[in-house]
Amino acid sequence: MPSDKPQKSAAPLRVGIAGLGVVGGEVARQISHHGDTLAAVAGRDFRITVVSARSRDADRGFDMAGIDWVDNAAEIAERDDVDIVVEMIGGEEGVALELVTRALETGKHVITANKAMLAHHGTRLAGLAEANNVGLMFEAAIAGGIPAVKSLREGLAGNRVSRVSGILNGTCNYILTRMEKTGEPFDEVLADAQKLGYAEAEPSLDVDGIDAAHKLTILAAIAFGQTPQFDKVAISGIRDVSAVDFAYAKQLGFRIKLVGTAEPGRMPRMQTCLLPMSTQLAKVDGVLNAVEFDADPVGSVVLTGPGAGSGATSSAVLSDLVDLACDRIPFTFGRPVAALADGSAVENGGGPDTPFYVRLMVVDKPGVLADITSVLQIHDISVESMLQQGRAPQDTVALVLATHEVGVERLMTALTEIESLSCVMAAPVAMPILVPGQEG
Amino acid sequence: MPSDKPQKSAAPLRVGIAGLGVVGGEVARQISHHGDTLAAVAGRDFRITVVSARSRDADRGFDMAGIDWVDNAAEIAERDDVDIVVEMIGGEEGVALELVTRALETGKHVITANKAMLAHHGTRLAGLAEANNVGLMFEAAIAGGIPAVKSLREGLAGNRVSRVSGILNGTCNYILTRMEKTGEPFDEVLADAQKLGYAEAEPSLDVDGIDAAHKLTILAAIAFGQTPQFDKVAISGIRDVSAVDFAYAKQLGFRIKLVGTAEPGRMPRMQTCLLPMSTQLAKVDGVLNAVEFDADPVGSVVLTGPGAGSGATSSAVLSDLVDLACDRIPFTFGRPVAALADGSAVENGGGPDTPFYVRLMVVDKPGVLADITSVLQIHDISVESMLQQGRAPQDTVALVLATHEVGVERLMTALTEIESLSCVMAAPVAMPILVPGQEG
Repeated sequence: MPSDKPQKSAAPLRVGIAGLGVVGGEVARQISHHGDTLAAVAGRDFRITVVSARSRDADRGFDMAGIDWVDNAAEIAERDDVDIVVEMIGGEEGVALELVTRALETGKHVITANKAMLAHHGTRLAGLAEANNVGLMFEAAIAGGIPAVKSLREGLAGNRVSRVSGILNGTCNYILTRMEKTGEPFDEVLADAQKLGYAEAEPSLDVDGIDAAHKLTILAAIAFGQTPQFDKVAISGIRDVSAVDFAYAKQLGFRIKLVGTAEPGRMPRMQTCLLPMSTQLAKVDGVLNAVEFDADPVGSVVLTGPGAGSGATSSAVLSDLVDLACDRIPFTFGRPVAALADGSAVENGGGPDTPFYVRLMVVDKPGVLADITSVLQIHDISVESMLQQGRAPQDTVALVLATHEVGVERLMTALTEIESLSCVMAAPVAMPILVPGQEG
Repeated sequence: MPSDKPQKSAAPLRVGIAGLGVVGGEVARQISHHGDTLAAVAGRDFRITVVSARSRDADRGFDMAGIDWVDNAAEIAERDDVDIVVEMIGGEEGVALELVTRALETGKHVITANKAMLAHHGTRLAGLAEANNVGLMFEAAIAGGIPAVKSLREGLAGNRVSRVSGILNGTCNYILTRMEKTGEPFDEVLADAQKLGYAEAEPSLDVDGIDAAHKLTILAAIAFGQTPQFDKVAISGIRDVSAVDFAYAKQLGFRIKLVGTAEPGRMPRMQTCLLPMSTQLAKVDGVLNAVEFDADPVGSVVLTGPGAGSGATSSAVLSDLVDLACDRIPFTFGRPVAALADGSAVENGGGPDTPFYVRLMVVDKPGVLADITSVLQIHDISVESMLQQGRAPQDTVALVLATHEVGVERLMTALTEIESLSCVMAAPVAMPILVPGQEG
């Protein structure tokens, strides 16, 4: 039999789980309660031998009998009765990094959902995994239950990828979707999302686009065969979007989303932008995630599904467990570390020219439009469409423009000049309009 | 190194391609022109050693120097210089089946897009692959460029699948989408689709739902760990849909699609039905395909992409080639043949109760509605909503109903009685309304 065909007679794979929170706890419950389902496709049983978590006393809904407990998660790496370490602690450094490093060094497979760690230390960890002939698996790190990593790394393995786009942070997508639906301001929606458990008490990782940028870094590494290079991602979050922008965007035929985009040789960008309503990604609402791969020869493939939560994320961990049981051990980023291009060798700058959405708060009086359009003309920026909402002579109104394609630097220069005009009452708001991918 | 890590030093994998049509030709071009891309992820080179096709003389856009030609495709199975047979001939029996059978028997891996063959002979072929320690790969058989097979078999391997739904035939979806947009009748759109190359001269495999049912058979086998059992699929095609139905469906909030649905223990169903406009699948237009997996613990995952064409299908074949090169050789239907449940052991009958769309052509005169609703009442069928289009006293008008959930047999009994009413001028048209999956 080929080596990766399940061998039902093989000994159980011994799993150590570090972190029994929302995801780690669910993984333990799935292994405990649905061992038969897993064994049927894995050809082997899984046995949890050791766990570690903050509180020893909580009832986590699975039988702890026969499972060892260690207070220091890093100890799991040193044990002889562990084949696979499931790291569900999080954080780019600290115990998580220590545990994963030592686990790989001691020849244990690692399954992690830790995108921050991979985005920052992925190359080194991938090298360790290779050197020690073990797998470093992370389907759960990106887009929750969507098999995005496997689809890109294996399912589209024969393609040249020209673009990866994604809605990769469910918290941001929930906030934007709700602002659009209810017109509530960002701060209120965020506060409510925190109450509902959709956002963390310290929301910066999510709403400033950092978590999503971690994921984009990893997808770009696989898609383009390059080292993950987080510091080469241009990041802007969702804090600056006003509820009014959703209504204006809608009138122009767009929706507002936090979208990551990566193309070969360019800086990946995680940015709040407008998407034509006719595109698939524009329709991804709430806590759903989506990824779109544009590639040759396949064309465009879009995957959508739950981006977070215990069920979705544990599904991804289970898929990695089955792969390991079947000896399907890929190179971490799809090829050997030595064959990865340098992810830092990308063009600096704001990405390709795109159309832009621009909102200006101006005094409603004659001559304003002429003042503004003359600045745009000086900078060779042409206007595709324009909206002025309502009439309020001598009062402040919104003037909304969609430009033709323009580089971000040229646009910013023009907007700085426009901001200095006496008729302009607030800093201009500008967001790129992404060119459509797959319609849907 | 784990056995499935690419070994760059390994000898090239030798590929024999049977059939150089739209897909086979593109596979050969991709291997010839993009060998470096493939080798980077496969860790090995691929070399085409032998091909077979109908015409030897056509210029197919790749260099035939050094590639042998055989007139009888089945000979490829007997050659010593072939590691992988790519079967792109098609047809459930004949040369394709002979070639694949012999290739597996002689210890060669097989990659095929032949869903008819797999739906009819899959269990036997999977057994042969297992017995001979080789892979029988068929990502290209289902949903073109969407990595549907890999996502289901590996990406969601740890889940219990509760439903597979799919828009699996691009020809039908193109025809339905165009009938909806233009109001043209089926026959005209079909004729035009034939001219454009979107439909075969003999369209029955597509428009009668058979091709899509082949694919659904295979997906159900993987999803539920059962033998593929084509004769257990309830199939209806798209010939009976009238252009008017699209408009009525739209008024009720639905779109009309040919959708395959499979659930554990039930007969899979390939049927023309109505989908709520808010669902992801309802938005899949033209030649796109889509699959939706509802599973525990993941929830719902939807994949959309090009369902046919040289680029999409060859992408799937390349992915199988890379998997084989990396020694990722799964069991054909996700588990050993001996562990598959009997796919024929499913409940007969028309599936679960669903709401139905019913269109009646009736004489526009007083009392008609009472006559019809009293028949429905006798059979305990309740009406959710109703449309009567226009007024034309004493002339024929359409009366459109959406029922509450009802079993198909009870509905059919009622419709037979309704058809016999003197005020009913044509056979009733009835289509199930599928309950929503993932919104999008």
